[in-house]
Amino acid sequence: MKKFINSPDTVVADALAGLAAAHPSLAVDVENKVITRSGGATAGKVGLVSGGGAGHEPLHGGFVGYGMLDAACPGEVFTSPVPDQMLAATIAVNGGAGVLHVVKNYTGDVLNFQLAAELAEDEGIEVAPVVVNDDVAVQDSLYTAGRRGTGATVFVEKIAGALAERAAPLGEVAATAREVNDRSRSFGIALTSCTVPAAGKPTFELGDGEIELGIGIHGEPGRTRAPLAPARDITAAALDAIEADMPLTGDLLVMVNGMGGTPLIELYLIYNEVSRYLAGKGARITRNLVGNYITSLEMQGFSVTVCRLTDSLTDLWDAPVQTPALRWGR
Amino acid sequence: MKKFINSPDTVVADALAGLAAAHPSLAVDVENKVITRSGGATAGKVGLVSGGGAGHEPLHGGFVGYGMLDAACPGEVFTSPVPDQMLAATIAVNGGAGVLHVVKNYTGDVLNFQLAAELAEDEGIEVAPVVVNDDVAVQDSLYTAGRRGTGATVFVEKIAGALAERAAPLGEVAATAREVNDRSRSFGIALTSCTVPAAGKPTFELGDGEIELGIGIHGEPGRTRAPLAPARDITAAALDAIEADMPLTGDLLVMVNGMGGTPLIELYLIYNEVSRYLAGKGARITRNLVGNYITSLEMQGFSVTVCRLTDSLTDLWDAPVQTPALRWGR
Repeated sequence: MKKFINSPDTVVADALAGLAAAHPSLAVDVENKVITRSGGATAGKVGLVSGGGAGHEPLHGGFVGYGMLDAACPGEVFTSPVPDQMLAATIAVNGGAGVLHVVKNYTGDVLNFQLAAELAEDEGIEVAPVVVNDDVAVQDSLYTAGRRGTGATVFVEKIAGALAERAAPLGEVAATAREVNDRSRSFGIALTSCTVPAAGKPTFELGDGEIELGIGIHGEPGRTRAPLAPARDITAAALDAIEADMPLTGDLLVMVNGMGGTPLIELYLIYNEVSRYLAGKGARITRNLVGNYITSLEMQGFSVTVCRLTDSLTDLWDAPVQTPALRWGR
Repeated sequence: MKKFINSPDTVVADALAGLAAAHPSLAVDVENKVITRSGGATAGKVGLVSGGGAGHEPLHGGFVGYGMLDAACPGEVFTSPVPDQMLAATIAVNGGAGVLHVVKNYTGDVLNFQLAAELAEDEGIEVAPVVVNDDVAVQDSLYTAGRRGTGATVFVEKIAGALAERAAPLGEVAATAREVNDRSRSFGIALTSCTVPAAGKPTFELGDGEIELGIGIHGEPGRTRAPLAPARDITAAALDAIEADMPLTGDLLVMVNGMGGTPLIELYLIYNEVSRYLAGKGARITRNLVGNYITSLEMQGFSVTVCRLTDSLTDLWDAPVQTPALRWGR
């Protein structure tokens, strides 16, 4: 295992200390692994908390800031955070208008956020959860009952965050978050595995010239392995899988997301194929993201996420955002 | 070779088509490989043109936009663009106030930009070049006489771009660009090689548990190979090399840059070590960047670049920038 780390035991804490040092806009409790905005809770605003295993950076800590999350709590690499972290984050961002929990659909995350919500409600804080489950690749998977939550998490956090910034009530923020999830689908493909620091060896093995279609963000098995093919065919396979589940019509928000080890030149090349494919279907990409937003350590791979926009969702997407990893319009 | 491409011959063109599709703010001539702002030249403003081999994305095309470059011309992967591209870019961005060429110090780039400048001057366009040569690792190298140009290129493009936006004359923009280069130093370290698509095999081989200290952005040999060590020691080696060449005092702009295949969690971990090291020297990091800005395809590695700021350079760094890869303040 070759990584830039000090010890497998301190990866998350060391990286959080770096996040804190780099971004004065964040308040990072390195010991308890809770990242909040440095300004504290905003009175009267719904607070947004997300969290999950580390190793998916910039998700979620890189999305804490104006117009997006109020707090993020990372677990160890690919391991759910504990309810105490989620509770601490929920209390920290409670501005009196309730708190939205954005939860990717992995069994540990779901159970722990549920327990944290109960504990928060015991303290008089209203909590609404949204469970993100956009990955069409497999129905059940390692770590998950039902569909996995992947790229749509970025869309949910951005759009619900914008609505919360406008002082919408918790019920409306939660409903919009669920609407974004309902209108979004993802599919991922890997060229290589990744290595969890504590494990010290690759999570799985792929042969030379072999790819995994429908990969999860922790290296969970996908639908099938296949021979390496031209980017055009691989992209079509991903979008075919999405289209089998959701019509690709209307105005679309599309993210071509790198898994951590994929160079940007390839992500733009893939975006070109996505763009051609969707043009061929008569769909229109009106908003896009190309880059590393929800990763799997150093995995070489990509995922494509499509959200069918409405005018209202487009307006919220365009709203100002100021976070380490997404920033525009203000 | 496993990559998301259609063919080694079309990588750059396909990626440029994707860049064009993703960013309406850019005008991309895919055939001639010239990227400009979609608004055309700004009358009375010094135009900024950069270019170099592809494979370093987002450099340079991702830095075209308000407050930074006016044009970028990529060559094939790790291959200099030709003078005709540079000339076309220079003509396209000429707003009557002259054009700055930002040139990384590689022999092909330097010669071709020199020829392009002569051709442009034949057409009545005043051109000033700045040659970036910030890499302290080696004196001469494969492709280079003198020091290589690496991370400081991002600083030069941002700061000179901000000054040009304020309608400063060409001589002043060029002098400031050179000042940024003079005040900046870089050092890079690799865990793995990268594979040029046309070559089909890794540029070099590193053993398990072996790293290359002082690596260039095309995989050119560095100073030495060494056993893998804790991130703290590796970071100290990089900064020791920089400090041997430039005192690390005063207000610093620091970039921890990923080489394309390094996960963000490791870049933040390295930033933490950089931050600790510099605090131990009594230096103060007042501005920073952590992410992939000048890459070497899918290489796992990082570089650290330090610029000794002045108040005036800080002010220009903070000025609004709106490009695909750097964006703030407007």
